[in-house]
Amino acid sequence: MNLYQDLYQFFKNENHVSQKLNILLDHSKDQSSYHPSHLPEVVVFPENKVDVIKILKYANENKIPVVPFGLGTSVEGQVIPIEGGISMNMTRMNKITELQPDNFLVKVEPGVTRVQLNDSLKEHLLHFPIDPAIDASIGGMVSTNASGTNSVRYGSMKDQVLGMQIILANGEELNVGGQYLKSSSGYNLTNLFVGSEATLGVFTEITLRVYNIPKYKLTALVEFTDLISASNAVVNMKKRDLSIERVELIDERTIEAINRYKSRNFSIAPYLFLELGGNEDIVHHDYELAKEILIEEGCLNIQLATNDLERENLWEIRHEVAFAIKSLNPEKKLMTTDVCVPLTVLPNAIKETRKIMDHSNIECAILGHVGDGNFHAVFSVDPENKSEVGLYKKINEQIVDYALKNGGTCSGEHGIGLGKIEYMYKQHGNSVSYMRQIKSLFDPNNIMNPSKIFKK
Amino acid sequence: MNLYQDLYQFFKNENHVSQKLNILLDHSKDQSSYHPSHLPEVVVFPENKVDVIKILKYANENKIPVVPFGLGTSVEGQVIPIEGGISMNMTRMNKITELQPDNFLVKVEPGVTRVQLNDSLKEHLLHFPIDPAIDASIGGMVSTNASGTNSVRYGSMKDQVLGMQIILANGEELNVGGQYLKSSSGYNLTNLFVGSEATLGVFTEITLRVYNIPKYKLTALVEFTDLISASNAVVNMKKRDLSIERVELIDERTIEAINRYKSRNFSIAPYLFLELGGNEDIVHHDYELAKEILIEEGCLNIQLATNDLERENLWEIRHEVAFAIKSLNPEKKLMTTDVCVPLTVLPNAIKETRKIMDHSNIECAILGHVGDGNFHAVFSVDPENKSEVGLYKKINEQIVDYALKNGGTCSGEHGIGLGKIEYMYKQHGNSVSYMRQIKSLFDPNNIMNPSKIFKK
Ligand SMILES: Cc1cc2nc3c(=O)[nH]c(=O)nc-3n(C[C@H](O)[C@H](O)[C@H](O)COP(=O)(O)OP(=O)(O)OC[C@H]3O[C@@H](n4cnc5c(N)ncnc54)[C@H](O)[C@@H]3O)c2cc1C
Ligand SMILES: Cc1cc2nc3c(=O)[nH]c(=O)nc-3n(C[C@H](O)[C@H](O)[C@H](O)COP(=O)(O)OP(=O)(O)OC[C@H]3O[C@@H](n4cnc5c(N)ncnc54)[C@H](O)[C@@H]3O)c2cc1C
Repeated sequence: MNLYQDLYQFFKNENHVSQKLNILLDHSKDQSSYHPSHLPEVVVFPENKVDVIKILKYANENKIPVVPFGLGTSVEGQVIPIEGGISMNMTRMNKITELQPDNFLVKVEPGVTRVQLNDSLKEHLLHFPIDPAIDASIGGMVSTNASGTNSVRYGSMKDQVLGMQIILANGEELNVGGQYLKSSSGYNLTNLFVGSEATLGVFTEITLRVYNIPKYKLTALVEFTDLISASNAVVNMKKRDLSIERVELIDERTIEAINRYKSRNFSIAPYLFLELGGNEDIVHHDYELAKEILIEEGCLNIQLATNDLERENLWEIRHEVAFAIKSLNPEKKLMTTDVCVPLTVLPNAIKETRKIMDHSNIECAILGHVGDGNFHAVFSVDPENKSEVGLYKKINEQIVDYALKNGGTCSGEHGIGLGKIEYMYKQHGNSVSYMRQIKSLFDPNNIMNPSKIFKK
Repeated sequence: MNLYQDLYQFFKNENHVSQKLNILLDHSKDQSSYHPSHLPEVVVFPENKVDVIKILKYANENKIPVVPFGLGTSVEGQVIPIEGGISMNMTRMNKITELQPDNFLVKVEPGVTRVQLNDSLKEHLLHFPIDPAIDASIGGMVSTNASGTNSVRYGSMKDQVLGMQIILANGEELNVGGQYLKSSSGYNLTNLFVGSEATLGVFTEITLRVYNIPKYKLTALVEFTDLISASNAVVNMKKRDLSIERVELIDERTIEAINRYKSRNFSIAPYLFLELGGNEDIVHHDYELAKEILIEEGCLNIQLATNDLERENLWEIRHEVAFAIKSLNPEKKLMTTDVCVPLTVLPNAIKETRKIMDHSNIECAILGHVGDGNFHAVFSVDPENKSEVGLYKKINEQIVDYALKNGGTCSGEHGIGLGKIEYMYKQHGNSVSYMRQIKSLFDPNNIMNPSKIFKK
């Protein structure tokens, strides 16, 4: 058996199958994570469902691992083909196949990126809100159940996917969900596949909800004396149902890193990035209420973005904190924790995390998607340095333990991949064995992204 | 083996186990549906998780069917123990075990009813919005993925359940989900169990999201010339993101039935019941926009409820349409279709449904949860009359076919139970075989609500 030759037979076209070293290298790692890379044996570029079926049938018959590849921005090693085999690059399946503005839904191929999608939704005054800060493919985002800054308002990918066309390991086509907003017909397979990190099948078409672009936005940077009062302000704003589009928290040490990296001189304090969105009148109305709450909770200063440029500048600060940390050790790779806890647990979880970091003398940024209890500690690690990696793992474990003890999850949005396998049992206990059995149902030969999510 | 004696041994208490005829009869049917009744052999009343484990272990070892029973208001025969065995009445497990107002979450035992829950949330100015018109147990509502008039704003049960404690057929305890708002850790088992209609296990504790009670409400009855313009008005109101709490549609023939039943004299026309909710200023603001849209779409008349009594009177009309139909044939039982389609398909689906009814000379009410594309045709049938039941089935099939052809589902909120089994394959195709295999994973002896959802 010659894998390349066999796959080449399907397409008779070099553009579809590659063993060029630079291409193999591109598919041996993700863009950002600290997980060691591993080359696939071959990279294929399907252009449609039929291609995917051919590849999977062949791979399944010959028990060859298959790892779909979107934009490779996942951060837990999800796309690394650690057992070799086929890396299936999905980016040529990038058509928006249907748009129904009045039904607030769109059908896309998995390689469509969120930026591409939003570009074509704009003229309909619609948007797809899930925003993992960086551009990413819809297939990848479904696979990791991605969310980001907007999830306080819109939820995560699981709340957006109405239906999917999926090709299973054996080449069988499955159509789950549909175009309806709710259903009580049979088991919810759609949400079983969302977040499955390519271990159950390949998504070839995805039906998503879309939303109105908020007509008006108001963005503010709010300085606090301490984390607890910043978090309380968020709880109280949620209590008042203000039209929050995003609300993000960073701690003192994070703004210090920003000051250094961007040569700024923000006061050293915790900050909330708050964005309200919707109808202009309502946003102004809600902002007055928000101000009352922020002041009541002892905020020190509110800096308002009064135009788009100022707004972008504010969000740039938020988006660059990770790079501020990375800049200290540009040769290292970023690692990030990702627990999600109940809202009221968040401030203490962040304090605990900061304590752990200080104790280990590690410089890190702390970014909280505080509206949904999810936060990241981001820091740099040398992937080659075993003791550093070991230290990171110990730190992450402590943070995860704290979260699990307090009703949280080890991953709010990044997924398990290679990096969090050991927390699966801790978090889910005996449920893991049922998850494994579900995996075996859909992929009995274990060709779909093997060695991810579950221990070998 | 004597089932009663064996179960009695567990509890040594007559109150826990019963074979009294009236109790068996109470558990042989649901309150409303046309499905033929069937007696359980025995009814048990667990008071806690340990009781449930005992009963299930015993039943599983002896391959005895178990059917959990909430309030028995489901309408597709879900609680009928058609293979005999044990009916497990969950109503004594009715404690609210934890309330975290600041985290907007509550933990309840499955027998807690939504009315009970809302009573105790009230003092915290919170509510649990899912409202299937009638009182129902949370366990039953999770099991059917219930929704109702509020789902245009809040979604269905799947959007409310954060986590669950589940006892599997073999007595094993599974804890799925948690207290977090989002997670990318492992497969989403929570949403697999929501809507599983007691075929996968028994829920013994449920963690739910709760919400602020809207501070202010404005309710209106809006008369239209035709269904299409009424539906367009809803699409346009959704486009403007108005703070809609509920929006319901009834057609001309339905208001005729109401006029007759309640001795009223509404003009014969389609009507929207519209409720806006939230902050008073915003509601008034949104109402002005709504009025513009309604007028633009040619509404004939808007009747505003200006106080709580008037509001209740309006909703009473909406809630009594089914009874208006039933009053024509009080000895018969109600049957109801339940398709859910994309928003823009709804008006034609309703027209098609009315045509089918008229063609068959059947008097029916049509109620549309128009904000989410779900509607019911409700009519009376004599369950003993085979040709009538046959006719109903044919009618439902036509309506379901229309929905499936147009991206819809055979059930938006009532579930499959006994009544819609034959649509499962039509709707889900080969997915059904995977659903069955999932069922076998969790319940290999097929004791959990056997003969429901799937063909024997
Ligand atoms: C700077 C930075 C910031 C980030 N911020 C966030 C954030 O705020 N929130 C967040 O959620 N994530 C965040 N991420 C992580 C990342 O963007 C997300 O995980 C995203 O969903 C990955 O999309 P992708 O297209 O790059 O997928 P990839 O990395 O290519 O793949 C991810 C997974 O999806 C699978 N996959 C891809 N296509 C398919 C398909 N068609 N069918 C089945 N499986 C498929 C892959 O096999 C893999 O398991 C961030 C990453 C970076 C680098
Ligand atoms: C007049 C009327 C109007 C209605 N309107 C609506 C509506 O608008 N929207 C809507 O969604 N429904 C509606 N329904 C249907 C019904 O109210 C819902 O299906 C409700 O969810 C049933 O709740 P219950 O407690 O009565 O459950 P039951 O009927 O007792 O049981 C329903 C299912 O849940 C299972 N079950 C019960 N408890 C548990 C448990 N602890 N663990 C596992 N499984 C369990 C049962 O075995 C059964 O399969 C209506 C019904 C009536 C009669």
